[in-house]
Amino acid sequence: MLRSPIKHCRHCGTLVVYRIPDDGDTRERAVCPACGTIHYENPLNVVGTIPVMDGKVLLCKRNIEPRRNKWTLPAGFLELGETAAEGAARETDEEAGAQIEMQGLYTIISVPRVGQVHLFYRARLLSTHLAPGPETVEARLFAEHEIPWEEIAFRTVSETLKLYFADSQAHANSPRAEPYPVRDFSLG
Amino acid sequence: MLRSPIKHCRHCGTLVVYRIPDDGDTRERAVCPACGTIHYENPLNVVGTIPVMDGKVLLCKRNIEPRRNKWTLPAGFLELGETAAEGAARETDEEAGAQIEMQGLYTIISVPRVGQVHLFYRARLLSTHLAPGPETVEARLFAEHEIPWEEIAFRTVSETLKLYFADSQAHANSPRAEPYPVRDFSLG
Ligand SMILES: [Zn+2]
Ligand SMILES: [Zn+2]
Repeated sequence: MLRSPIKHCRHCGTLVVYRIPDDGDTRERAVCPACGTIHYENPLNVVGTIPVMDGKVLLCKRNIEPRRNKWTLPAGFLELGETAAEGAARETDEEAGAQIEMQGLYTIISVPRVGQVHLFYRARLLSTHLAPGPETVEARLFAEHEIPWEEIAFRTVSETLKLYFADSQAHANSPRAEPYPVRDFSLG
Repeated sequence: MLRSPIKHCRHCGTLVVYRIPDDGDTRERAVCPACGTIHYENPLNVVGTIPVMDGKVLLCKRNIEPRRNKWTLPAGFLELGETAAEGAARETDEEAGAQIEMQGLYTIISVPRVGQVHLFYRARLLSTHLAPGPETVEARLFAEHEIPWEEIAFRTVSETLKLYFADSQAHANSPRAEPYPVRDFSLG
């Protein structure tokens, strides 16, 4: 889903020019010299879940590029018409066929280099019956010591997993009112 | 920034057709019959702040459509290359010229009807010197009882303000370890 630069106007098909629009904008946009349409490009949201059963986390081995054969939490692009939580649940169904109960939002990670914001929700995995979709080679549960850290597809996933296990451990050692506080940060 | 439907391919200018791509996708996309480009459209992030000084909140009277002359928290579309917090700080500077210190993420509100996710950060307003930009008629501070509730531009803003004042009051009555827990929800 990497996007090529805009060359033609989405409205009339004319070749666009890149310039700062006359409406007070401060950034270059693809502007149509024929019909005046200004084309904006903005960051995308990737939404996913951390499905957990008995302290083990569900990971999916990717069957698609990028990072084919690397492991990820179930996640994908938020679609029009969905809430962030709905998108995260849909991706979990599509990629793992997992039965889950959605819990709270956990990480919100800006990745400005690729123009994305990743949102992961905690989820309770309700059954070990999994039905991975075509985008997934294999889906299985991992205890913390089994996580293939060197084979994780995306840094947002490995950071989310590390935080999750650290919060679980901290809460087990010293119970907290909110074991899993929401964490908002960015990765360069 | 409302978007018209995609009519022409961004890559080659050919008229697109709307159909489900052959790659396992489940949604109709604008597909180019000439070069095969698949055009995705996804929700946009709106990022803003709740700038507070002495319990008063900074609001901006909009000088642009939609909702011209209604009041809003400083907010706008997240741009490529920014983190969510950076975008929220930029919008606060552009719309109010306000000096702030960014604090934590507070609300994350999905608005699937318009394909948006709104993120508001708490912020400490450091000076009463404001310098509203061209998108703002006027910027000023409001105590809770002064908020023009009937004149708020967007529901995400009024819901964020209501939650903020309720959390402030609850914390004043009975101090909490985390006075402003992150709130993720959706508005229909
Ligand atoms: Zn045009
Ligand atoms: Zn084309």
